[in-house]
Order: sequence, then structure tokens, then C-alpha cells
Amino acid sequence: MAAELDGNIELVAGAFSQDAGKSKAAAQTYGIDEARAYANYEEMIAAETKRADGIDFVAIVTPNHLHLPIARAAMEAGLHVMSDKPATANFQEALDLKNIVERTNRLYALTFTYTGYPLVREAREICRRGELGAIRKVMVEYLQGWLTQPLEKMGQKQAEWRSDPAKSGIGGCIGDIGVHAFNLLEYVTGQPVKKLSATLRTMVAGRALDDDCSAMLVFENGAPGILAASQIAVGERNGLRLRVYGEKGSLEWYQEDPNRLQLKWLDRPDQTLHAGSAFLSEAARHATRLPLGHPEGFVEAFANIYRDFSHAIFERQERPDASLSGSVCGIEEGVRSMAFMERAIGSSKADGAWTALEY
Amino acid sequence: MAAELDGNIELVAGAFSQDAGKSKAAAQTYGIDEARAYANYEEMIAAETKRADGIDFVAIVTPNHLHLPIARAAMEAGLHVMSDKPATANFQEALDLKNIVERTNRLYALTFTYTGYPLVREAREICRRGELGAIRKVMVEYLQGWLTQPLEKMGQKQAEWRSDPAKSGIGGCIGDIGVHAFNLLEYVTGQPVKKLSATLRTMVAGRALDDDCSAMLVFENGAPGILAASQIAVGERNGLRLRVYGEKGSLEWYQEDPNRLQLKWLDRPDQTLHAGSAFLSEAARHATRLPLGHPEGFVEAFANIYRDFSHAIFERQERPDASLSGSVCGIEEGVRSMAFMERAIGSSKADGAWTALEY
Amino acid sequence: MAAELDGNIELVAGAFSQDAGKSKAAAQTYGIDEARAYANYEEMIAAETKRADGIDFVAIVTPNHLHLPIARAAMEAGLHVMSDKPATANFQEALDLKNIVERTNRLYALTFTYTGYPLVREAREICRRGELGAIRKVMVEYLQGWLTQPLEKMGQKQAEWRSDPAKSGIGGCIGDIGVHAFNLLEYVTGQPVKKLSATLRTMVAGRALDDDCSAMLVFENGAPGILAASQIAVGERNGLRLRVYGEKGSLEWYQEDPNRLQLKWLDRPDQTLHAGSAFLSEAARHATRLPLGHPEGFVEAFANIYRDFSHAIFERQERPDASLSGSVCGIEEGVRSMAFMERAIGSSKADGAWTALEY
Amino acid sequence: MAAELDGNIELVAGAFSQDAGKSKAAAQTYGIDEARAYANYEEMIAAETKRADGIDFVAIVTPNHLHLPIARAAMEAGLHVMSDKPATANFQEALDLKNIVERTNRLYALTFTYTGYPLVREAREICRRGELGAIRKVMVEYLQGWLTQPLEKMGQKQAEWRSDPAKSGIGGCIGDIGVHAFNLLEYVTGQPVKKLSATLRTMVAGRALDDDCSAMLVFENGAPGILAASQIAVGERNGLRLRVYGEKGSLEWYQEDPNRLQLKWLDRPDQTLHAGSAFLSEAARHATRLPLGHPEGFVEAFANIYRDFSHAIFERQERPDASLSGSVCGIEEGVRSMAFMERAIGSSKADGAWTALEY
Repeated sequence: MAAELDGNIELVAGAFSQDAGKSKAAAQTYGIDEARAYANYEEMIAAETKRADGIDFVAIVTPNHLHLPIARAAMEAGLHVMSDKPATANFQEALDLKNIVERTNRLYALTFTYTGYPLVREAREICRRGELGAIRKVMVEYLQGWLTQPLEKMGQKQAEWRSDPAKSGIGGCIGDIGVHAFNLLEYVTGQPVKKLSATLRTMVAGRALDDDCSAMLVFENGAPGILAASQIAVGERNGLRLRVYGEKGSLEWYQEDPNRLQLKWLDRPDQTLHAGSAFLSEAARHATRLPLGHPEGFVEAFANIYRDFSHAIFERQERPDASLSGSVCGIEEGVRSMAFMERAIGSSKADGAWTALEY
Repeated sequence: MAAELDGNIELVAGAFSQDAGKSKAAAQTYGIDEARAYANYEEMIAAETKRADGIDFVAIVTPNHLHLPIARAAMEAGLHVMSDKPATANFQEALDLKNIVERTNRLYALTFTYTGYPLVREAREICRRGELGAIRKVMVEYLQGWLTQPLEKMGQKQAEWRSDPAKSGIGGCIGDIGVHAFNLLEYVTGQPVKKLSATLRTMVAGRALDDDCSAMLVFENGAPGILAASQIAVGERNGLRLRVYGEKGSLEWYQEDPNRLQLKWLDRPDQTLHAGSAFLSEAARHATRLPLGHPEGFVEAFANIYRDFSHAIFERQERPDASLSGSVCGIEEGVRSMAFMERAIGSSKADGAWTALEY
Repeated sequence: MAAELDGNIELVAGAFSQDAGKSKAAAQTYGIDEARAYANYEEMIAAETKRADGIDFVAIVTPNHLHLPIARAAMEAGLHVMSDKPATANFQEALDLKNIVERTNRLYALTFTYTGYPLVREAREICRRGELGAIRKVMVEYLQGWLTQPLEKMGQKQAEWRSDPAKSGIGGCIGDIGVHAFNLLEYVTGQPVKKLSATLRTMVAGRALDDDCSAMLVFENGAPGILAASQIAVGERNGLRLRVYGEKGSLEWYQEDPNRLQLKWLDRPDQTLHAGSAFLSEAARHATRLPLGHPEGFVEAFANIYRDFSHAIFERQERPDASLSGSVCGIEEGVRSMAFMERAIGSSKADGAWTALEY
Repeated sequence: MAAELDGNIELVAGAFSQDAGKSKAAAQTYGIDEARAYANYEEMIAAETKRADGIDFVAIVTPNHLHLPIARAAMEAGLHVMSDKPATANFQEALDLKNIVERTNRLYALTFTYTGYPLVREAREICRRGELGAIRKVMVEYLQGWLTQPLEKMGQKQAEWRSDPAKSGIGGCIGDIGVHAFNLLEYVTGQPVKKLSATLRTMVAGRALDDDCSAMLVFENGAPGILAASQIAVGERNGLRLRVYGEKGSLEWYQEDPNRLQLKWLDRPDQTLHAGSAFLSEAARHATRLPLGHPEGFVEAFANIYRDFSHAIFERQERPDASLSGSVCGIEEGVRSMAFMERAIGSSKADGAWTALEY
């Protein structure tokens, strides 16, 4: 839905299921030629790269353990890749993937979806222009309640693979949403995290992975930060909230009210920005389709990432060195987020020992 | 974007401009066969109805004065119609259109977009189930600020035709947004307006049509209501807000925060409903694509109307008497909203005299 | 509580009940000398004006029908008066009272409590300084739900006298809260209402007075307005909300979130002001006791009116012509609000006929 | 203001300044007999305890280093004590004070003001009644921006003593507001913190004490928590926010919107409670003075603590073993909050080492 929203991209082939019959059935519901519905990614890549009208890129929307093998196969076959986050199942894989991306010179983007919202991009511009002054404190939280109960034992598919280390990798909540929170704070502030002290917990008895995380952070410039992620915060929906405090001003953005950005200042009135305002930055305006006051949401944010990605693919047709817009997260953010996850898990195992993010 | 979101509908032809060259250029940006880009609707209808793979329906997205002629031509040629509101340029035309719809037995839907939001549909179910008790008071407001300045004299296209009686019809603000407010309150409450007393004003000097409206209403059951619509409410964006008070409870919905519905009760805590909750009505769940907390917006609401419409078209292929889902507004709502507009203008000219809506 | 909050005023005498015993009992709970607890206001005024340490002013907190007789008796005896609104039981009484105030040269203030909030005073300053430009539209609403049921027949004292014409006067909802809404809009905008068209309803069967009011307004400068007041808006608490739209900007204030004032502008970001900010007007700062972020509420707003009133009494000790601060509503606002009430009732009886406010 | 609000308490004596002249001048503005304005607390206690109409209790509102000596002197002279928090300048002093309280059997209360809000008390009742199920996660934050600049070097008195270790003790932000946050979470949840890992920072160059704190917590029942306190969060006012997540439901309360309490549940609609509702717990209703929708604020919350304290003093006149209402924080909470502060500072110095709160 997001990929096709702007008319630049068309879904024409896929490996929709490991069961060939189911894959073909899915193709039909998508209005795709059955011949291009494959039973696995190897088959798909092999067949599509032989067609004159073959696919330009692969979108990886599988459980995490398949992210690396599919991305590798696709890029080695000359295809670009748009992958779900996290980039890979663990940090070492992310480094491997980085090598592959560099070696194959393919476009590689990660759907850190929240970076597609216009006001997240406005927030980033505000930080870049130095309007807040030096960053002094960052608070990010990502609170969900959907794993309050042991859904993975109650037949819920999304919960099953996400809490299964074999499919999800070493991180539960930290890998599913913690990395979004981490990515968002670095994306907006432009300020890298230097080290962290984390506590991961499994609050629902019998669950194999963490479902609640807290971390204290220190940024490269010495500023402190706090990251909280939880999937047992009963009643919370998809509560990703970022607050950034600088020397001169601060900003706050909340994913469930995504078309508003709140700014506060030293000694002048608070301000609220709205998506669609003519006076926003080009980065924000470029990410909005509708007039002021006409809400855009998650699909549109997602579509912004696909749109930027498609533009890079079009440019590649002109210039082989065309690269992704800086607004789109790629392998660099993928590696950092995997480092974050692995170091957070390590820190938590070491009783919250401060752990550097460098690698 | 909205039409194609769910994959049921594909844009394959159009009269995109009165200039044949521009129409073809537009086709290209939409990825449409140039041969199916026409210079006017007559040509399009003639050509498309001859094709085996011709269009199933026409979407009318022109200024108001063309709504009737296009709808008539399309339906008489056997095509279904999805039209922008208002249905026609005046009330008499709406009655004519009703006859045409009935005579041709074509599907006719109006994009009263706000009725596509899941929580508007939830609100309607709540009223239908009688949870609020008998309705006692309704307040609806639709506040915008974009015509605070005389944009129509500053080269803004949308403002130009909307404030030009030749293209917009007899209503300015009342026709552009007042009818949305009116439609929403009848849609949700299921309670028809019986009579009204209105005041329309033109607050920006030199503007040809009203830009601010107030109306007192009385419903069939005797309950009073207030409708306010303004396009000179500086700083407002697209502020459509509905509040319904019954004997036992009340509800409030606001278009700029569309995924939340507030309920208040006699002697028990206020409640807030969120789009995507498992315990909402089927009507609301059917209108949601994403999990709880993932905002859907205007495009998705619009798409819900197209999706319902496409289902009726599919059903027509099985049963010639298949009709539109009751969730979608059609010619009946079109006639009522034109009656509302014409009676409000009449009442205002008669110094706010109470005017019945019946016809 | 409000009168004594700032230490300028002390409650030392009263007619707390028509029953002398009850009056004395009440005095005890207030820590007042029993000798100064009277069985009626005549007795109180007679006795207190004979004492060297007698009272300086009378606070009238009775049902409406007693407002005029007590005020008259007090002022004719040389005492100042702080009265609950409405000033009197009807408009003619208000004119009489105005004569008495002028003749006796006593200080007379009305507890239009909401005018005591710091951000209401800020809003007024913003209008005065012309920051919004010429006013184009005003919307005021005062919504309560406490009379959703026929409480007056269920033994609730406050509901009993308020819905009894003999004690409350000719207005129900319009007199109890409609006049607050009216007063607030004139107080903040400084723009007098010229004429109105009103609809008053009694929605609860058997109730003697109106419990729901709507009015369309026209201001002296031609701008339209809407006033809504209801006591059967189930679930609403004490929802007084004012929105003022000018040519350049707009403001919104809501009584249940009184320490915030929202400003919106043509082509620049929305702003939010908070009570206690150093950069607010003197009028607002003068009405705040605590640092930023420490909520003040209804009692403090009330106390601001008492404090201003006490300052005028102190000044009278120096200068016999000292008058009330312009921030405090007096007999002029009292007469206007009674005119509003009477004209609204008249208009409603005449089926909403436009009725001038002049007198 | 708060002490006198309900009429149970009267300010009759004080040591208002170390300068006898200034103390007498202050007395005059308070309307107090000059003879009872003393130059220091020793003098005051000596004189007042000799009077038949001497004071019943002392309210300590000095910088922190004087809390213990004054409390000791007062209690040893037979007076009760209401003290500003923190109880003392360090943990050892708090233990000493606890002995004094126990030995003298005087009433000792701490103005943890936020525990006086009606909806904080409602939140506590909800936790007590087990409505949320076992607590799984607690997040508390107290964010202010007033020390964003080095005010202590710009002549601001409040900033001066608070950032001076000689007057404030060993804690800056942690002692000024961190302890409020800590106290609030234990007060509401009834769940004691077992251990913590803290990071304290001084973000404004040259400041002598911490101005920003983060802590990860573990409760006795194993649940994790996060505490954030900052005085350099530019643009924040007095942002104390508590969120408690249990197995079945969660609650959120925010000090700047104190009359609202939000509840969220597993599989049913969110709820909002409002101060003044008839269906709240007795604890909340007892702490409210005004009808629904009439905001009460900081002064009223403060007054609730004084009122409860005064009731205990009255009861002592009947029964020498009468004790403080459980709603009021006393020496136990004082000791715990000092332990929290000292352990947090210790943990921070030990690079965030987990530190037990037990003593």
C-alpha cells in the first residue's frame, strides 16, 4: 500500500509464502501475474533477473533471521533492497551486510518508518540548523501494551515469531521497537550515542525474549539521555515519543499525533507546528501530500521512504553513483541500530555496565 | 491515491484537462495510456463505453457547476458515478440528478470524505444502538482559516473557482464546507434536521460569496442544534468537530485527531475509543487497515468510501439490484445537503427566518 | 475562601441563614463572633453600620431575587457591595441598581469569576493591543451537564432555586451561565454585541425554565458571533470556552484548562501562553501568585476579583473618588448582561427575531 | 495561603527573617502582632511555648540545612512540625530526626505537596484496590527548565541557595525535585523501590550541584522503573508526570493538568477521571472543595496536607496517641526520600552501580 501510494512503484512479483500454492493465491489478491509468484526468494531472484521487465528491487518483509540472506542474494544478483528493520538478526550480520552493500554498490534502505513523517523531518532540520542550541538531554520512549499477555502462546502469529529467538534474533522488545526509538533519536538530533547502560526484563512469565527495556545514554557531546521501550505497558498503543532539550529550545513529537510538533523556548511562547504549513522546511513540505489539517498517517510516512527510494532508483538510471537521499536510513543506520541492540543486551547481562557503542 | 489504495480500482482513463495536450501530459504522469486521455468528458464517455475494457465508473472531481452534466452523461451511458460534493450547483439540479440516478439504476456515491473515518462510523453505530439515549443537542463546526485573505485575488486557483458563483454555485463557505458539517451531523445522529435559521456573511471585502455561516437548527425530534462554518477563522486548519448530546451520554469527534472518539456519560467515567481497537463495531473495524496506534488519515478515509463503492460495483456483476452499502452517502444525502444549502441561503436572506428543510 | 486568600479581607459578620440559630451555628464554623451572626440582611446592615469596627462591604451570595434588595439596603447604608451575578432578577432591576450605585457612590462589583483568570486578562490585553486585528468572528460556549436529569425534583438545593422562577428570575440556563459567556466575550474582545437572535429550550420535561440556549450575535463592528449555553450537555463539566478570530490572529481559552491560552496566526506557528510566564502582560502577571507550572484555579481567579476590589476600598480611604480597576466587572457589565438575558428571552419568544441590545 | 485556606489554621507568630526589623515588617504584612515576630527560631520557640495562646506547630520553610535544627528544637519544646521537603540535608540527619520524632511523640509532616492533589489520592486508591493488577513498570519524570541558564550567578535567590551545597545539602536537582518524583511513585503505587542505578549530571558549566538526573529502578516485587528529573529541560515548567503499568491496567497523572487522571485497560476503552466526580473514592472527594469542572490547583493541594495535619492536631487534644492520616507524608517518607537521594548520588559516583535502598 505504502510502496504504491505515489505511483512510482508497482508490485509485480513476490515470494508471498513458502507454500507455492499459497504464494500464487496471494498473487491473485494482489492482481499479480501468477507466473511471478514464487515459493522462495532464491527462485524469485533467479527468475526475475532473467526477465527484461524484471523487478528493480526487493522489499524484505520477513521475520528478522531472513533479512541478511535475502538482502545478500538480491544485491549479489544486482537488485536494490528495501528491508524491514532491524537490518539483520545480530550485529555481526549487519557488518557483513554493510560489506555486501558497499561491494555490490546497490541501493539499500531500511524502513525506519517513523523517519518518514514530515514533522520528524522538520524536527531534524530544526536540530541541524542549530535552533535548539547544543543538545543537553534527550528522552525517547516507545511504549506498547500488546504483549501484556502471553499472546505468543495464544496463537497470535506476530507475537509468535517476535518472541522466538530463532526467528527474531537476540532481541525481543529491544529489537522490535527499541531500535526504532534509538534510530529516531539519532536521526533527529544528529547526535550519536556514545555509551549506554541498559536493563532488559522479561515481565511475562515464560516469554523467551525481553519485553521491557530501559537505558541511560550518554551522547558524544556528553549530554545524557533516557530510552524506554516496553511491550507490556498495558493500554499503550504505539506510543513513540521523542523529546529533545537543547540550550535554547526543546522539541517534542509523538507518533500517535504525528502532524504536530511542539517547540518550547527560553523566554518566549511555546510553538506548535502543523504538517502542511507553508512555512515549514522543504524537507517537511516534500513529505506532505495534502493541505493543512488533512491528516496523513503511517501509510503516508512509509510511502515517503518508498518515494525517496524510488527517486534514487530512477537517478541510478542516469548516474550509476546516484545515492539515497540523506532522509532515508540505510545500512549505516542499520549497523548502528544493531550495535545498539547488541550492546544494550550485553550491558543488561553485565548488570547495566556502561558499554560503548563504537565498533 | 485514495481510489487505488486498496487495489480494487485502477485509474485507466480520464479527461484531465480541457486542453488535449495537457490531458495527455497528465495521463503520462499517472502512467495511463495516452489514447485514453481525453479533452472532455463527452469524448471520454463515448470512447470508453465502446471499449470492451472500458471504464466501470467515472469520478467527478471538477468545480461544482459540472457535477450534474457529467453525472448525467455518464449514467445515461451506463456508467456508475463517484462524485465530489456538493452533488450539484443548486437544489433543483439535485432533484434532477435524483431522477436520473433512479431512472438509470446506476450506482451513485458522493465523497463526503469524513464519513469514511472509522470513528465517524463508530459514532454512527453508537447513536444507532441508542447508547446515548434520545438526542438532545448537536453542535457541529467546521472552521478553516485559509480564506482569511482574499486569495481569490492573489492567484490561488482553489480560491478562485470556489469564490466564483459561476463555477461554485450559490454557496461559498456554506457549499464548500457547511454541507460537510450538515452531512456529518445527520450521518452520525441518524436524526434529520427539520428547520433552520441561518446567517451567512462575507467578511472579506469584495468576495462574491459567503465566507462565514452560523445556523441554529431544530431536529425532527425537537432537539436544538448549532452549525458553524467559517473559512475566515484565522489559524484554523480543517477543523471539523461534531458533538452530540443525548439523554444518557455524549460523543465528540474532531477531524484533525480522527482516530480518537470521546464519550461522556451520566455518572460514570469519560471514555476514549481509538481506531483499531478489537472491541469496536464491525463498521469501524472494517474501515481500519492498520493495528492500534498506527494513524490513518484523510486518504484512508477517502479510500474507505472508494472501497465500499467498488464492492457495490463487484456485486452488481452478480446481482443487478446490488446497492451501495449504507455507510456510503449517495443521491439522498446529495439532495438533502443541497436543500440544506439552499434553505440556509434563503433563511439568511430573510434575516434568519426559520425555514423548513422538507421538499 | 476566595475573599480571604490574599489576607486583605476578613469575614467578620454575616446573615448566614434566615434561621437565627442556624446563622449563629454557621458563624461558629467560620470562627466569627456569634454576636455578628444575623438572621437577615436588614438586621446585619443596621447593626454593623453602628459599630466602629463594622463591615466595609457586603458580599451577596443569595439566590438572584434578593440581589437587588440587599445591594440597595447595603449601599444606602454606606456599604460597598460585591455581588454574585446576575446583578438582579431582571433588566429593569438592573437599571434601578445602576441608579443606586451612581447615587450612593459606593463601590459595586460583580463576581464574573472567569474574568479573574490571568489568561483571560492576557487575552483581553491581546485584543486591546490590536494584535488580532479587527475582530471577525467570536464563538463562545458554556456547556454543563449537571441538569441532564430533573435534579430540582430530586432534592438538589442548587437545582431547586435555579429552576424556580420566583428565586432565579426569568432566566434558567441563560441567566445562570449564558450571562457568563456573554460577559466573557465582551470582556475579552472589548467589542459590544449589537443584536442577537436566540433560541431557548427546555429539554427536560417539567422544568420551569430554559436549560439550553443558542444565539447568533452581531457585534457593533458587524462581525458575527455564536453563543451556546447548555446545562443538559451530558458529560460536560464546566465547559466555558471562548474563541476569538481577528484579521491577523485568533485566540482560544478554555476554563477547565485555565492556565493556557492558545494563539494562532496568519502564516506563522501557533503559540501557547502559560500563566506565570515572565513575558506576559502586567494584567496577567498581577493575577498570578505562583511560579510557572504551578496550577492556579477557580478559587484564585475569584480571589483576584476580591483582591482588586479590596484595593479599591483601601484607595477610597485616601481618595473618595477612587474607583474599581477596569479589570473588575461592575454595574455596567451587570446592566449589559441583564439586557442580554432579557433580549435573548424576548428574541426566543419571538421565534428568534433579531433584537437589539441597546437600552 | 495554603495553611489558612480552610480556616483551621492561623498564622500568629514567626521568625520571618534573621534581621529583627525585617521580621517585624513581614509580620505587619501578614497582619501579625509585632511582638510575635522573632529574629530566629530559638527565640520564637522559647517565647511561644511560654504563652498560654502560643503556637501549636511550626512550619519550616527555610533552606534545607536548617530543617533538622528547627524541627528538633520545636519538637523538643513540645511543638508539632510541618516541614518543607527534603526532611533534612542528608540521610544521617533524617535518621536522627526520626529518633527525635519517635522520642518526642510530636506530629511531624512533610509537604510533599503533590500528594495533596485529589487525583493523586485517587490513583493511590486505585493501586491499593488492586485494580491495575501487580505493578510491572513505573515511569516518573519531573522536568523543569528554570535552571537552563546559570541563574544562581544572575542574582536569583531561589537558584542561589538551591545550588549552594552549604544550604541545599548534597543534592541539587535530585534533592529539589527528584525526591518529589521518588516520593510520588512510592506514594501512589505503595510499592517500595528496592535498588537503583543513577546518573547525575551538571549540564550548566560552573554549577556546584547536579541539575539533571536519570535513574533506573527495581521495585521490591521485581518490576522495573525509570525516574527522570531535570532542571535544564528548557521550556518545561513544572512537569511532574507519573505513569504506572500493571498487569490489568495503567494510570497516568500530570501535575500541570492535575484534575484529570487517565486510566487504560486491557481490552476495554480508556477512561478519564475528573476531580469532583461523585463516583470517586472518598480519599479523592475529601480532597476537593469545588464542583466538577472548577479547577483546583497547587494551593488547594497544599492546603489538603495542612488540613489533614490540623485534624490530627485537633485529635491530639482528645487522644494523645492520635496520629497523622495515612494520606500525609511524615518522617518515614522523609527518611526514605533522603535514602533515595543519598543512594542515587552514591550510585552516580560509582558509575551507576546498582545500589540498594535498604537501611
